[in-house]
Amino acid sequence: MRAEIITIGNELLSGNVLNTNTYYLTKRLSEIGIEVLYHTSVKDDAQMLKDVVNIGLNRADLLIFTGGLGPTYDDLSKEVISNSLGLNLTLNEECKKTIEDYFRKLNREMTPNNIKQAYIPEGAKYIPNEVGTAPGIFIEWKGKVIVMLPGPPKEMQLMFDKYVVPFIKQDFVIIEKTIKTIDIGEAQVESTIQDIIKSNKDVYIATYAKDGIVDIKIVAKGRDKNSIDEILNDAINKIKNRIADYIYSYEDETIEEVVFKILKKNKIKVAFCESCTGGLISSKFTRIPGASEVFDRAYITYSNLSKMEDLGVSKDTLDKYGAVSKETALEMAKGLLNKTSVDVALSVTGIAGPSGGTETKPVGLVYIGICTKDSSKVVESLFGGDRVSIQNRAYLKAFNELRKFLLNH
Amino acid sequence: MRAEIITIGNELLSGNVLNTNTYYLTKRLSEIGIEVLYHTSVKDDAQMLKDVVNIGLNRADLLIFTGGLGPTYDDLSKEVISNSLGLNLTLNEECKKTIEDYFRKLNREMTPNNIKQAYIPEGAKYIPNEVGTAPGIFIEWKGKVIVMLPGPPKEMQLMFDKYVVPFIKQDFVIIEKTIKTIDIGEAQVESTIQDIIKSNKDVYIATYAKDGIVDIKIVAKGRDKNSIDEILNDAINKIKNRIADYIYSYEDETIEEVVFKILKKNKIKVAFCESCTGGLISSKFTRIPGASEVFDRAYITYSNLSKMEDLGVSKDTLDKYGAVSKETALEMAKGLLNKTSVDVALSVTGIAGPSGGTETKPVGLVYIGICTKDSSKVVESLFGGDRVSIQNRAYLKAFNELRKFLLNH
Repeated sequence: MRAEIITIGNELLSGNVLNTNTYYLTKRLSEIGIEVLYHTSVKDDAQMLKDVVNIGLNRADLLIFTGGLGPTYDDLSKEVISNSLGLNLTLNEECKKTIEDYFRKLNREMTPNNIKQAYIPEGAKYIPNEVGTAPGIFIEWKGKVIVMLPGPPKEMQLMFDKYVVPFIKQDFVIIEKTIKTIDIGEAQVESTIQDIIKSNKDVYIATYAKDGIVDIKIVAKGRDKNSIDEILNDAINKIKNRIADYIYSYEDETIEEVVFKILKKNKIKVAFCESCTGGLISSKFTRIPGASEVFDRAYITYSNLSKMEDLGVSKDTLDKYGAVSKETALEMAKGLLNKTSVDVALSVTGIAGPSGGTETKPVGLVYIGICTKDSSKVVESLFGGDRVSIQNRAYLKAFNELRKFLLNH
Repeated sequence: MRAEIITIGNELLSGNVLNTNTYYLTKRLSEIGIEVLYHTSVKDDAQMLKDVVNIGLNRADLLIFTGGLGPTYDDLSKEVISNSLGLNLTLNEECKKTIEDYFRKLNREMTPNNIKQAYIPEGAKYIPNEVGTAPGIFIEWKGKVIVMLPGPPKEMQLMFDKYVVPFIKQDFVIIEKTIKTIDIGEAQVESTIQDIIKSNKDVYIATYAKDGIVDIKIVAKGRDKNSIDEILNDAINKIKNRIADYIYSYEDETIEEVVFKILKKNKIKVAFCESCTGGLISSKFTRIPGASEVFDRAYITYSNLSKMEDLGVSKDTLDKYGAVSKETALEMAKGLLNKTSVDVALSVTGIAGPSGGTETKPVGLVYIGICTKDSSKVVESLFGGDRVSIQNRAYLKAFNELRKFLLNH
């Protein structure tokens, strides 16, 4: 069954309302194994809607409409859709009674145009609305299924889940997995695993890049859970064999969450000192509930003075190598470790731009230092993009370097 | 000009991603006076997309496509759309060079499929992408305008605002203003200025709430710049008279940018110490280019020990009043001021949750301290929402309190 979702309403086309109905219905339909091919939104306009209905009937087997079922004169979905299907509207007594009861219960006066809502296309089932007045409609027509639901998300969702899902549910199993990668571009991920993507039509594999992280999403579906699991694991293993070095998690989680789990599991305390990232590392880390269990403190040593005063970086080092250097990154991390009682210290210093770059030290140059009592390392990177991108890449890289360091020590 | 927005991508049709691109483009087009008639979303499927293109060309004059411009094999938008228009793709040398530069700068290997992105339809203009590799495309074709933009919202928005809006703006004058408010809810803003919103049909006024900030967007359009200016200023003055206390700017800028300007103008140096916000204040501030001119350092004193060691908060105060208290907030700010050579010190301490709250000190309780040599203040707030919301509200409130303090001292 191939579905199209058609959302109707001027408010959607004027940019006043974010279309969450489409998102909700798509997610729910995917979950129950129905492929959604198209989304359409259209104004409350009879001619435009009629055209949209005809296009939809041409290309999908399941059409779900939302919106335009209210009592007012611009609510014309039911009339237009029924007309397109060649079905007359007839008064449904049961539906009329339900609407009357609703108003009685609310102690509100029922206006004559509310009766309009009790008319449904001949041969259709009506879908009760327990939290509003507009009933929904379910029609089986020439091998297709047409569903109409009211626009308010709360009403729509309740009616869809309670009445529509049981009508249309297939006996499909769908399992999704996400592989998280870092330090590799989307094009490179894709070209490296292209044959795996194409090898099995029961598995859908796609890459999504966002802010320096590339997600590989793997969805498998079929009728038998065991064989799906097998197909899925097979795809994951193949991908792992190709790009293991870039994978930081097989769960849908952030790089800082991975670091947090390693620290917590091994009872390791951490502290940060940041220059060019200006608190980003610390703020990302402290978004995690329970961060205080492993995080002691951070120093945002923006000025050279603060690097000396708070971290004990020597004036000599700053003069000789500069604030953005391997040596300073290392002294920052060592100073932080000495000053606090943490087990591992992370430092970042770099040039986020737009100004401050030179020929030998361009904008985007970043040093990441990591230090424990017994060992230390410094990593040099050069990031592209604007100030915010550079800060963002540096924060991701810093956590990834810390992750690798923790796994190796 | 009647527009259709066509978003392309399997991720949209699988329910993995909420379609914010359609919303953004619809809002922006409405603001500049272009009517959006239809939204369509379609999978990365050549035949389906071809059909959608033809339907769109039939019913709209402006077609904006997003998605499917990446380097991978399932990115086929450009190929399919150009083919539908009967246009060949040709290598654009300038565009190729830009992509090569992007990779060189990132020090990352460019794969052959990235070159695919430098091909554009004959007669088209290419739209530079300053934060990614996929360029956009702008075509004038048989009296219609066709625009292709990449799917990632950050890239799409930047390119649309910077390059597409100037292309498609008609010969009427459109002036936009944004009034930024804080510490007031969207419903309250709306109900307070409702009559102003409705009073003049040449001015489009709408409110947008995001993360504790309510933007009032005012768009005036017409043929005569002077009269538009007058209408616009009249609306702004009326709004100002109603809610002046909540307005922090008449420009589209963040609260930290406003604070930065005040500090810079008055040559005031600042430092922060943060507990519950965990570096968010500092990281937001250091996103601003040139932050180092006014920002010395920050301490993220998450543990009690660090509050004592780094800021000189007394053990007595922590024992007697607790880490989340007016007294601790004040001692943090005072300690920070004493330790550094800055002119003003800002402190934040609170309970971000989800755990750690008590009956007398619930989750969401936050104290903000501000201190100079001559004066100080502490503000108590209680924020709702989850951990991330509380941190976010606290950061906004801290900058707003600092802004008010600086204006009064």
